[in-house]
Amino acid sequence: MPAVPADSFSAESVAATIDAAAARITPYLRVTPLECSPFLSRPGGPEAFLKLENYQLTQSFKARGAFNALLSLDASERARGVVTSSTGNHANAMAHALALLGIAGEIWVPATISAAKRAQLEARGARLRLLEGDPGRVEVAAREEAQRSDRVYVSPYNDAAVIAGQGTIAREILTALPECDEILVPVGGGGLISGIAAWVRARAPRVRVTGVLPANSPVISESVRAGRLLEIPWTESLSDATVGWAEPGTITFPMCRDWVDDWLLVSEAEIRAAIRLLVGMHSMLVEGAGALATAALCANPGRFAGRRVALVVSGARIPPYVLAGILASQD
Amino acid sequence: MPAVPADSFSAESVAATIDAAAARITPYLRVTPLECSPFLSRPGGPEAFLKLENYQLTQSFKARGAFNALLSLDASERARGVVTSSTGNHANAMAHALALLGIAGEIWVPATISAAKRAQLEARGARLRLLEGDPGRVEVAAREEAQRSDRVYVSPYNDAAVIAGQGTIAREILTALPECDEILVPVGGGGLISGIAAWVRARAPRVRVTGVLPANSPVISESVRAGRLLEIPWTESLSDATVGWAEPGTITFPMCRDWVDDWLLVSEAEIRAAIRLLVGMHSMLVEGAGALATAALCANPGRFAGRRVALVVSGARIPPYVLAGILASQD
Repeated sequence: MPAVPADSFSAESVAATIDAAAARITPYLRVTPLECSPFLSRPGGPEAFLKLENYQLTQSFKARGAFNALLSLDASERARGVVTSSTGNHANAMAHALALLGIAGEIWVPATISAAKRAQLEARGARLRLLEGDPGRVEVAAREEAQRSDRVYVSPYNDAAVIAGQGTIAREILTALPECDEILVPVGGGGLISGIAAWVRARAPRVRVTGVLPANSPVISESVRAGRLLEIPWTESLSDATVGWAEPGTITFPMCRDWVDDWLLVSEAEIRAAIRLLVGMHSMLVEGAGALATAALCANPGRFAGRRVALVVSGARIPPYVLAGILASQD
Repeated sequence: MPAVPADSFSAESVAATIDAAAARITPYLRVTPLECSPFLSRPGGPEAFLKLENYQLTQSFKARGAFNALLSLDASERARGVVTSSTGNHANAMAHALALLGIAGEIWVPATISAAKRAQLEARGARLRLLEGDPGRVEVAAREEAQRSDRVYVSPYNDAAVIAGQGTIAREILTALPECDEILVPVGGGGLISGIAAWVRARAPRVRVTGVLPANSPVISESVRAGRLLEIPWTESLSDATVGWAEPGTITFPMCRDWVDDWLLVSEAEIRAAIRLLVGMHSMLVEGAGALATAALCANPGRFAGRRVALVVSGARIPPYVLAGILASQD
């Protein structure tokens, strides 16, 4: 667990860690394009810009947090190695960063992981530990094992260094588009939006930060409404990277509560339509979570009229059979 | 037609136009990543690097040539506007560059163009002229119209400025990976490989340049073998951007003949497998032509053992229904 109580963070202090992270990780990562979309922009409507984290190294924003967490280790922590858990983008980002930096690390994954995902991680040189049970249980067990063996645990979102890495996206958006009015951000555990909202609150407070979640799993937005982290029911979503409960006590909860301006939910049909638009018109691959911001823009045309909106396209890793189904469907 | 006879070009003179093009176009374009592929590399086998022109602005390398051609116009040519023809990547690149630079231009396209392609071009602000007949006939008619109306015609490949723009890819590859042994390049009309081969021959002659074509349409490679530009039979291919005859007298023919080291052909099944690998493992979109180099690497494992090979992933624009079919098939 983080040493500093979450509620004692200020946006200014987190923004300072983000500025430091940018200097630390930039040599290892891509400054991804912010691409104006002629297909989502129109006169009188929004002017839409895609922040292409699907073009980031390992094809998602998670590479930012992974590199910042590993580059922030002291010599002794680095020598002992790390433990992490994830089946998706964070695992790929960690596997890549561990191999590149020559740090030992174990990635704990559910035993139900697909053969393709496993092959992908192993090709990146990952040392996997397969565990029975759901992803939440694997996360808890991995953290316990890290404590037992005196190694650092790198959470996919509940980690100050990971949040600082993800927040570097806000710096890049506002550098490329200082006149940006609003940033739409996909939200799962809240690591990405916590970093972005902290930096914007401290450095560009005129800009709105809006979280987008699948209506099937609005855990963080409902928790913010309730004023406490809830374990509400959720169902599967095409945006599989953003479903499920957040870890109890996650430092992302007070950040989301205090610094995020608004929340939007999108349906599965809206996510499918956004994926089809990004593949068909923009010729780029996105996963469900990567299409959330685009889906929210398309579903709320009036809300964004006359505004310059940056849409965080968070990642590209969509299983081919899922993509084939979406492209073949017409709803 | 170009003023300078093609055969009088030297690799050195073309390389100089490429260096000048790089300075001219870099502010408008992306230096695309050269990404090491853990999925295509193995000990004792090749070390493979993807040159990600599918991440280029307008999602293909064609943006390089389009910007160089337009930025090379003199004031009078610029004021008169240009004519071009293409249904695909060159048209999108020209539409984007014309709008950004504020130059008038007509894009001639076959009347059979799909509604989706048309919508995509019109969203980029393109002024289209629809013409009955096949793409070759549209190309000839567009060039005639340009001459009649005293405007510059910008060919997708048979144009010295376009070739110089495409050649900037070689500079970027060798800057990122000076120890590169070989570059695999998709070949249609030959504009891309002519630029790359010229620059390599003049500036890094140790590096091999190999052209890859669909076995269904090996027009340029068979022409090089015959010593003259042939109009041989060809059939459709998933690599639709590289099929068909090259324009009679194209300046790319002697460049391909004199500067390209080798040629490889790939089957439609090999192209499908390469698309599935790039989508499934690398989580990136590619069109058929964009998968040719990867297909050639996978189809000839022994040939590349111990070599550092750069694969030019030329573009991403694949129709969604075509992609869905490939992802659903298993061959």
